[in-house]
Amino acid sequence: MIKKILADDLRLKWGRAQQAMEAMGADGCLLAIDVNLYYMAGAIFNGYFYLPAEGEPFFFVKRPNGLSAEQAVYIRKPEEMADVFAARGLRKPEKLLLEADELTYNEYMRLMAVFRPEETANATALMRSLRSIKTPWEIEQFRISAGQHDKTYAEIPSCYRPGMTDLELQYEIEKRMRRNGSIGLFRTFGNNMDIFMGSLLAGDNAQAPSPYDFALGGGGVTSLPIGANGTVLENGMAVMVDMAGNYTAYITDMTRVFSVGKLPRQAYEAHAVSIRIQQEIEAVAKPGTPCAELYDLSCRIAGEEGLSSCFMGTKQQAKFVGHGIGIQINEWPVLAARSKETLAPGMVFALEPKFVIPGVGAVGVENSYVVTASGLEKLTLAEETIIQL
Amino acid sequence: MIKKILADDLRLKWGRAQQAMEAMGADGCLLAIDVNLYYMAGAIFNGYFYLPAEGEPFFFVKRPNGLSAEQAVYIRKPEEMADVFAARGLRKPEKLLLEADELTYNEYMRLMAVFRPEETANATALMRSLRSIKTPWEIEQFRISAGQHDKTYAEIPSCYRPGMTDLELQYEIEKRMRRNGSIGLFRTFGNNMDIFMGSLLAGDNAQAPSPYDFALGGGGVTSLPIGANGTVLENGMAVMVDMAGNYTAYITDMTRVFSVGKLPRQAYEAHAVSIRIQQEIEAVAKPGTPCAELYDLSCRIAGEEGLSSCFMGTKQQAKFVGHGIGIQINEWPVLAARSKETLAPGMVFALEPKFVIPGVGAVGVENSYVVTASGLEKLTLAEETIIQL
Repeated sequence: MIKKILADDLRLKWGRAQQAMEAMGADGCLLAIDVNLYYMAGAIFNGYFYLPAEGEPFFFVKRPNGLSAEQAVYIRKPEEMADVFAARGLRKPEKLLLEADELTYNEYMRLMAVFRPEETANATALMRSLRSIKTPWEIEQFRISAGQHDKTYAEIPSCYRPGMTDLELQYEIEKRMRRNGSIGLFRTFGNNMDIFMGSLLAGDNAQAPSPYDFALGGGGVTSLPIGANGTVLENGMAVMVDMAGNYTAYITDMTRVFSVGKLPRQAYEAHAVSIRIQQEIEAVAKPGTPCAELYDLSCRIAGEEGLSSCFMGTKQQAKFVGHGIGIQINEWPVLAARSKETLAPGMVFALEPKFVIPGVGAVGVENSYVVTASGLEKLTLAEETIIQL
Repeated sequence: MIKKILADDLRLKWGRAQQAMEAMGADGCLLAIDVNLYYMAGAIFNGYFYLPAEGEPFFFVKRPNGLSAEQAVYIRKPEEMADVFAARGLRKPEKLLLEADELTYNEYMRLMAVFRPEETANATALMRSLRSIKTPWEIEQFRISAGQHDKTYAEIPSCYRPGMTDLELQYEIEKRMRRNGSIGLFRTFGNNMDIFMGSLLAGDNAQAPSPYDFALGGGGVTSLPIGANGTVLENGMAVMVDMAGNYTAYITDMTRVFSVGKLPRQAYEAHAVSIRIQQEIEAVAKPGTPCAELYDLSCRIAGEEGLSSCFMGTKQQAKFVGHGIGIQINEWPVLAARSKETLAPGMVFALEPKFVIPGVGAVGVENSYVVTASGLEKLTLAEETIIQL
């Protein structure tokens, strides 16, 4: 199950985690959440990954049967982990890291009763921090996703038929995503981030506020609280496509705008401002740059252009212009006013300066970048102009 | 946002919840999880639904702006709920229900600090229990889902092309699901239940064990731990289609089997045993029937037919034969040996006696049923024989 090609990458991650654990005086880190298991164990299984501050990890596996990892120890319930520790003469951790922002309350309390640590700390925060600096293997995964993401977006004009709805256009794009290798599942951090494969917003549906931390919302349909709402695509409408780049476990994020016929001049002008924001950020961003500065720069340019009132929404405005990406779409860092983070080599983030033009729709670009030693490298390379359908 | 048509249904649910709260001596129930919000508030938003043991509920809304519910009270953070209680002279609950199996540990602790109740109880357990008895409006939603589910399944033979893989066939079915109104998102209870729109298992991939509580597994691809694995569809292979009936917020569950060419005789025989199990359960199940009895009946028939070793899997066997369905695919009751539940009118469940034939694939049927006053009513009505592609 753990492929040889991954073994070195996993050891690199374990080493980084152990270094961080030593710095915080933690002796053990227990992980149970799918994305953290994928990150640290190279596979998603039902069970726990335990990393001591020193030495080799354990894979405590409930299911599936037959996991081939050499470190696999089969258990039926979490309480048996205590028996394994006792039988092997291992010391139980005094300071234990648990995923406090991901485990349910009852899961957390049950694990506390198994280990009875003297002290705990938040494995979610540690993992989100570690995961924000991507390994070379992870960056390769992004490159694969980006290539397929570009390929799918090039097929979008062929998906359009006059008279179709936003949903019908989205279905056609979804099918091409899948044929190009999208895993479908779109992983997010946090409860209730109900989204399906991405977002396609046509016309004034782009003004509908989002309940969650997505840049824009959309009214959604039935029990989906965001996204396409059945709008018929009509002349003069901007169609913003922000569908997931989940072609590997690592998700690239890219937005492009299409038009039905021609748009009003102000839409093209606002779109050009989005590209100007992107260029100015590309010019200044490098390791050490505070993420908050990049947000401030975006807001300053939007203000200079007289577009503050429609920057990142109208009725409700998102208070960030970019976000880390990875196994989940909303990783660290965040490009927001209060962000304390600074860019570092290996970070991968999406930059999405967007404007919403009432009566027209959303315009702007979003691209995924990796932070290199000297600046930014753009990963998503599809054509950035507004393409007429 | 709360549609008039739903208002009566919501009042019915609030009344049932308040009755249960009174019986357990709880004075307040605070809900934050999407499926519980949809159930009790008729909409998914970022915030909290608070139901006192007596009187009207509050919708504490963080986002989106402009929620039209008359009960909406806007807050920026959960701590402001305490201010609202104080400002309105409301008594804070002494025994508070919180979603202990769904909220994260940190969310739960933060809400505890806001309300400082003397006692708590598990809102997850209460909601799962209430949600297991569907209201008339909910049963109507299932009927809509079932009709579209049947329609999609009738289109499956037209999706097939010789030489395609299981994934390629699944993509075609997914597109038809979407065109027939599937919301796409497939809601499950529990962490890590990573599945995308359902499961399609061809040939021996049906033997690959599942990490989670799905009846069968499948090897999956990249970071998806279950489902189709790229198997090329070949002559003599059974293709089991178990794609979600998520055409409304209420999911029907239905499995049908297709064959590439003819299958060996034992596959048709096992398929007939699955239908026999279904018929025998249909004949005896009614309000008051213990769910465990239905599981035992299934196992007894599988045993009589000499099929125990391939019932519900081979390398790993699922230990249930049916499960409640609703807004999530895995609701209560569970038809398993240790189930303490008995059938009651308004329960809706899926029955899925399946057999895995090594070298051939999975066979059997799955259907969704509503429990009526006198017995079972089948909701999913697609042709049940093995259909040759």
